[in-house]
Amino acid sequence: MTIINIGDELLLGQVVNTNSAFIGQKLALKGIKVSEIITIGDDRKEIADALSYCFEKDNFVITTGGLGPTKDDITKEVICEHFNKRLVRDAETLEWVSELLASRGMELTEINRRQADVPEGCSVLKNTLGTAPGLWIQEGENVLVALPGVPFETEKLLCDEVIPRMETFVNNGKRLIYRVLMCNGISESNLSDKLGNFEQKLPPDIKLAYLPTPGILRLRLTLHGNSEDEPLLDRHFEKLKEEVGNLAFSYEDRKMEEVVGELLKKAKKTVAVAESCTGGRISELVTSVPGSSEYYKGGVVAYNNSIKRNILSVREDNLKKHGAVSEMVVSDMALNIMELFDTDYSVSTSGIAGPGGGTDEKPVGTVWIAVATPTRLTTRLFNFGKNTGRKQIVERAANAALDMLRTEILKDFKK
Amino acid sequence: MTIINIGDELLLGQVVNTNSAFIGQKLALKGIKVSEIITIGDDRKEIADALSYCFEKDNFVITTGGLGPTKDDITKEVICEHFNKRLVRDAETLEWVSELLASRGMELTEINRRQADVPEGCSVLKNTLGTAPGLWIQEGENVLVALPGVPFETEKLLCDEVIPRMETFVNNGKRLIYRVLMCNGISESNLSDKLGNFEQKLPPDIKLAYLPTPGILRLRLTLHGNSEDEPLLDRHFEKLKEEVGNLAFSYEDRKMEEVVGELLKKAKKTVAVAESCTGGRISELVTSVPGSSEYYKGGVVAYNNSIKRNILSVREDNLKKHGAVSEMVVSDMALNIMELFDTDYSVSTSGIAGPGGGTDEKPVGTVWIAVATPTRLTTRLFNFGKNTGRKQIVERAANAALDMLRTEILKDFKK
Repeated sequence: MTIINIGDELLLGQVVNTNSAFIGQKLALKGIKVSEIITIGDDRKEIADALSYCFEKDNFVITTGGLGPTKDDITKEVICEHFNKRLVRDAETLEWVSELLASRGMELTEINRRQADVPEGCSVLKNTLGTAPGLWIQEGENVLVALPGVPFETEKLLCDEVIPRMETFVNNGKRLIYRVLMCNGISESNLSDKLGNFEQKLPPDIKLAYLPTPGILRLRLTLHGNSEDEPLLDRHFEKLKEEVGNLAFSYEDRKMEEVVGELLKKAKKTVAVAESCTGGRISELVTSVPGSSEYYKGGVVAYNNSIKRNILSVREDNLKKHGAVSEMVVSDMALNIMELFDTDYSVSTSGIAGPGGGTDEKPVGTVWIAVATPTRLTTRLFNFGKNTGRKQIVERAANAALDMLRTEILKDFKK
Repeated sequence: MTIINIGDELLLGQVVNTNSAFIGQKLALKGIKVSEIITIGDDRKEIADALSYCFEKDNFVITTGGLGPTKDDITKEVICEHFNKRLVRDAETLEWVSELLASRGMELTEINRRQADVPEGCSVLKNTLGTAPGLWIQEGENVLVALPGVPFETEKLLCDEVIPRMETFVNNGKRLIYRVLMCNGISESNLSDKLGNFEQKLPPDIKLAYLPTPGILRLRLTLHGNSEDEPLLDRHFEKLKEEVGNLAFSYEDRKMEEVVGELLKKAKKTVAVAESCTGGRISELVTSVPGSSEYYKGGVVAYNNSIKRNILSVREDNLKKHGAVSEMVVSDMALNIMELFDTDYSVSTSGIAGPGGGTDEKPVGTVWIAVATPTRLTTRLFNFGKNTGRKQIVERAANAALDMLRTEILKDFKK
C-alpha cells in the first residue's frame, strides 16, 4: 500500500500532512501496512510519474488531493490518462452536488458540475461532507483510490467507504501486528542498553523500534504475520513489559496527559498545578485533553518570587535560605496550592530552563518537582542537562511532573 | 530539492510528519522549492531505493530520521553504501557526545560512541540539542544532508547549519531578496481579497506569498535579483505595510510572543495572565521567550469556576447572570489579577474550546478576551468557528489575546 499526497501547500509547509498519518494509523489497526508515502505538487508530470512509480512497487495506491473543481485540481485527469479511461458525468453525484449547494444557498455552475465527472467504470465513493467524491478504480490486479485533500472529508471517506472495501482486497493473509509501550524518564540509548539482551533474543521476524519525543519514549514491537502469531507477539510483549518495569506509563499508544487524566477521572479526584520554570506547560498539557475540566481545577504560574510568596504563601525564609529552585520551595508550592484550590492532588515545579540563570551549584536544567496527595508529599530533583535547550527542559520537566503525579495516584488506587 | 523522511512511525501514523512542513516552510522563505517528499520505513532497501530515485531527479536531498544509536537506525550505513564511503569515528563529535552525556549524569557506552561515526569526508553538523549529528555530504554536483528525526533537533540544525550552507550552494550568484510581514486576526482568503488590487499592480518579478499557521498569517514579498533591486522591493513593501495597516504585528519574521515581550521589556512594564479556556497556553507562549522573567510575573489558570471566584474574585453575580464565558467575567479576571499580581498590564480569556460545552447562544469557538492597562479595560468577543477543533481554538485565542495586549501597550507607548 502506498500513498500519494498531492498539493503545493504540502511542499511549501503551509499545511502539515495529517492525512497520511491518519491513513497510516487506521490501516495499521487493520493490519495493512503503508510501505511508502510520496508527496508532490499540483503538477501533471509529477502526478503521472508518481502513479507509475507506485504501481511498479505495489498494486494498491491511495491518492489525496487535487479533486476540487479549480484549475489546479488535475488529479482526475491524470488518473484517466494513466488508466487510459475517459471522464464521464455521474448522474448520482451531480444530484448530490446540486443538493448540497442548494442547501448552502449556492448556485450550480459549470465548474461545480465538473465535480460529478469521474473515470469511466470506477466506483464512486459518496462524500457526504463535500462536493468532491472519492474514487475506487480497479484495473486487473491494481486498485487506485482517490480521496479529496480536506482532512475531515478524507478521514470520513477512508473509514466509511475505503477500509471496508480494502479489508477484503489487500490483506491476502498478511497482516502487521504490533504492540506499543510508552516510557518516561529514560533516554533512547540507555533503554537500548538495558534491552540489549531482550533484543538479541527476539525472533528475527519480530522487530523492536524506539520512537523518542522530548520526555517520552515510545517502544513498538512489530510482527508481519497472521492472527495465529498474535500469542507469540504477546509473549514477547509481556517480556518487554517486565524488562521496562515501572519506566512504562502505558501499554498502549497514549499521551501522558491522557493517562493521568483517565486515572483522575476514574478516581473522581481533582488536581491543581503550581508552576515556575514550566511556565504553564503542565496546565496546557492537562487541559489539552477534552473533558479535563472534570478533574483539573486550575493552576498558578508563579514565575516571579513575589507570586510564590504572595499567592502561594511560599515562606520567605525558604526562599532566602534555599533559593527559589529548592526542595523547600516546591514543597510549599505543592502543599499550599492544594489547600488554596481545594484539590485532592497537586504538582509543582521550580527550576532553571535557561539559557541564562544557571550557576555552578544549580546549572541550567536543574528542576525540583513536588507532588502532594492527601497524605503524602513527594519531591524529586532532576537534572535535564545544561545543553538541552529551554523548550526541551520545559517539556521534560512537564512530563516528569505528570509521571510523578501518575505514580502517586496509582499508589492510592492500589490500596 | 527533495526530502526523504525515514521512520516506521510515520508510515504507521503514530507520528505526524511535521519535519517536512517545517523544512518546506523555511526553505520557501529562502526561495528554495521542495519538489517532492518521500516517506519510507526503517528499511535498508527502501532507503537505498529512495536515495537513488531522488538523486536521479535532483541534486539536493535532505533525509530525516534513522540517525540514532539503536539497531533500527540504519540511515548512516545506507548513505555510506550509496556514496561508497566508509564510516569513521569523528573525534569532535565523540567529545561532544561524552560531554553531553556527562552533563546528564549518564555513562558513555559503546552504543553512544557510535553516534560519532560519520561517512568519511563529510561535514559534520553539530547537534547542540542531542547526540546524533547532522551530516552534509557533497559528491560532485550532488549534496545529501542527513538530519535526525526528532523535530526540535531537525529544526535547529536546519536553521543554524543547513540553510546558511544551502544559500551559497543552491542559489549560484542568484539572490533571493525578501521581506516578511506578520499578521493576526484575518484569514488568508479575506486578506487576499483586500490585497487584490495591490497584487495586480506588482511588477511581474515581485511575488507575494501567503504562509498561514493557526492564528498567524505570514506575508512574503520576494524578488530574484541583486542588491540594486533592494530599493524597488522596499518601495513595494512600504505599500504592502500601508495596505495591511494594523493587522500587522511585525515587519520581520518574528513570533507574537517575542514582539510582545520586547515591547514590555523596552517599556519596563510587567504583565500577568488569567486564563480559562486557553488553559495555560498564553503563559506558556510568553515564558517560551528567554528572559521573559523580566516582564512576566505569573498567571492563574482558572479552569473551574470556584478558582475564578475564590482566587480571582470574579463576582458570583456576574458568573450567575452572564455565565463564565462573558464580558463581565473576563473583565473581573483581568482587573483582579492585575491588582493581585501587582502588574502594569494583564490579559484574560474565557471561552468554549470544545468539543463539548457549546450551546446555540454560545457555540464552541466563542471566546471573550480582556486586556487591562493602568488606565483602560478593553474587551472583545471572538468566534473562532465551531468546527475549528480544540487545539486550534486555543491557539487562535492565545494569539488574539497577545495581539490585543500588544495593541494596548503600543497606545501607551505612543503617548
